[in-house]
Amino acid sequence: MKVPAPHPTLEAVAAHAGVSRATVSRVVNGTPGVRPELREKVKRSVAELGYVPNSAARSLVTRRTGAVAVVIAEPETRVFADPFFARQLRGISRELSANDLQLLLLLVEDEADYQRVGRYLAGGHVDGTLMFSLHANDPLRGIAAASGLPTVFGGRPWWPEWERDASLVYVDTDNRDGARQAVGHLLDTGRRRIAVITGPLDQTSAVDRLAGYCDALGVTEPEPALHAHGDFTVDGGAAAMARLLAHSPAPDAVFAGNDLMATGALRALRAHGLSVPADVAVVGYDDLEPAAWADPPLTTVRQDIARMGEIMASLLLRSLNAPESPPASVIIPTELVVRASA
Amino acid sequence: MKVPAPHPTLEAVAAHAGVSRATVSRVVNGTPGVRPELREKVKRSVAELGYVPNSAARSLVTRRTGAVAVVIAEPETRVFADPFFARQLRGISRELSANDLQLLLLLVEDEADYQRVGRYLAGGHVDGTLMFSLHANDPLRGIAAASGLPTVFGGRPWWPEWERDASLVYVDTDNRDGARQAVGHLLDTGRRRIAVITGPLDQTSAVDRLAGYCDALGVTEPEPALHAHGDFTVDGGAAAMARLLAHSPAPDAVFAGNDLMATGALRALRAHGLSVPADVAVVGYDDLEPAAWADPPLTTVRQDIARMGEIMASLLLRSLNAPESPPASVIIPTELVVRASA
Repeated sequence: MKVPAPHPTLEAVAAHAGVSRATVSRVVNGTPGVRPELREKVKRSVAELGYVPNSAARSLVTRRTGAVAVVIAEPETRVFADPFFARQLRGISRELSANDLQLLLLLVEDEADYQRVGRYLAGGHVDGTLMFSLHANDPLRGIAAASGLPTVFGGRPWWPEWERDASLVYVDTDNRDGARQAVGHLLDTGRRRIAVITGPLDQTSAVDRLAGYCDALGVTEPEPALHAHGDFTVDGGAAAMARLLAHSPAPDAVFAGNDLMATGALRALRAHGLSVPADVAVVGYDDLEPAAWADPPLTTVRQDIARMGEIMASLLLRSLNAPESPPASVIIPTELVVRASA
Repeated sequence: MKVPAPHPTLEAVAAHAGVSRATVSRVVNGTPGVRPELREKVKRSVAELGYVPNSAARSLVTRRTGAVAVVIAEPETRVFADPFFARQLRGISRELSANDLQLLLLLVEDEADYQRVGRYLAGGHVDGTLMFSLHANDPLRGIAAASGLPTVFGGRPWWPEWERDASLVYVDTDNRDGARQAVGHLLDTGRRRIAVITGPLDQTSAVDRLAGYCDALGVTEPEPALHAHGDFTVDGGAAAMARLLAHSPAPDAVFAGNDLMATGALRALRAHGLSVPADVAVVGYDDLEPAAWADPPLTTVRQDIARMGEIMASLLLRSLNAPESPPASVIIPTELVVRASA
């Protein structure tokens, strides 16, 4: 009743040949010291079962568990509702799979989760970690340090004196420049009362996009009547837009910190009988599916999120293979995509 | 620069008191044999740091790693696009968290993934596994057996002679009865040419829903002109509906194997200028968000997916705590929810 795995493992070959795992390993790796008749037996089993040794795996000398923990500091409800996370995981998983490393996804939300994840990471069950969507002073930083595991962060983390931490490795997109391009485009197309809907301001992505908005307008902080807080969700964007419309004069444009909030803003504008872009131009951020599917399709800032995931994973692989020379952080450029909404 | 965790760990207490983890553990568990001055030191640190020992965790005597692997036999693209998985994970995570167990999510898609997951599970890094969305003869079955870990399956698995496997524990909803109710409702409301869009027929959920459709119509298999295959996605549902409409006479109703495919069917019907439910009634399955948001809102079959996840986790906990008496499988009833589409 045992169902054979489609790709047999080293263990299956060992069982089939009636030898130890170590013997199979020596034969497939060409290590000397195996008796000829055993060598023949193993080779026959390898052929019969169609066993393919993984050379990428063999080259990774520092692997111990063969697994990498991806820790996201968000609840399931957000991780599964925002295509951003699926995209980033796709990139990570592509790179880890290519190196035969197992991806383990862990989500942390409340304080008990942090403790538990800390214990698991410190328990020797993974070779390294990738952490993203951290919040200001996120305990994940201490947890990563305490675990002693090589860690790469997704998005610039935010804790006191992070700039001086030589061991910090992160991958980010150029959020500030992306926001500058978005608001610059609104200015170029004649908009004068440009509002901003920000994401959670305990995350650098949201803070940096707000900074880019201010850069483009030549101000140090947004005018209160032109600023509303969102939470990176559709509903949060709709509520923020409704609050902005309560002020007079109303804005003639809005820059939302991600596509989901921009979609919510479109919904609120429609509910107020306003037309996009005639009355109010809307720009989003991310260029994920909701941007192209929106009505009207969203002008937005494209960041290559899958690539960000791939680079995170490849930097971690470099740390695993050469722990003495940690890689430098990487900032990926962003690009404005103009569609009908602005 | 170390950021303290909001809930201190046993390790933090040990470091603060300058004693070993074992000493802290003995003091908080009331085990004798710790010198009074050390005991006092630990108690002071416990109070100062606000350490709360987790009694639920202590009661779980068989735990070794404190982690449970949740393995889904689907690619990220599906897991993140179908709210079914988020809902099920929410239920699982609620139950595991309440017992201070760490959830590790692993997705398997290609054969290399299966091998790698097999190695990880056999490596002693988790205490048990929950596996769902298996396909016919899924290698996960052999992987679970080879790992020696207590395992609970989500959805009735499907391999030769599964009925005779006394060790098999699974949680499912009553797919066949749910489909019977859905098609019965279409018959009761006067529909006579009722088509079916099935999910992947290598999964028991899809097969059982098709069987329920046949039960309600009193046939052993669907009429070819009234049957189209989908893949549990919106696009798959739209393509299947378009194929059904190519036959003459056209169906006057369609039962789709999940809400996503039903949403796709609505889209295809609209594209063909047909009105729902006047020309064609549509019934979905799952009762997830897309059902209530659809236009018109979908009549569908509600299955309590979060509850299914909770029960899976609680059966696994029982297996961990009492390995000598494995729990019985559980089938959760389903319920028709009537909205505007049928």
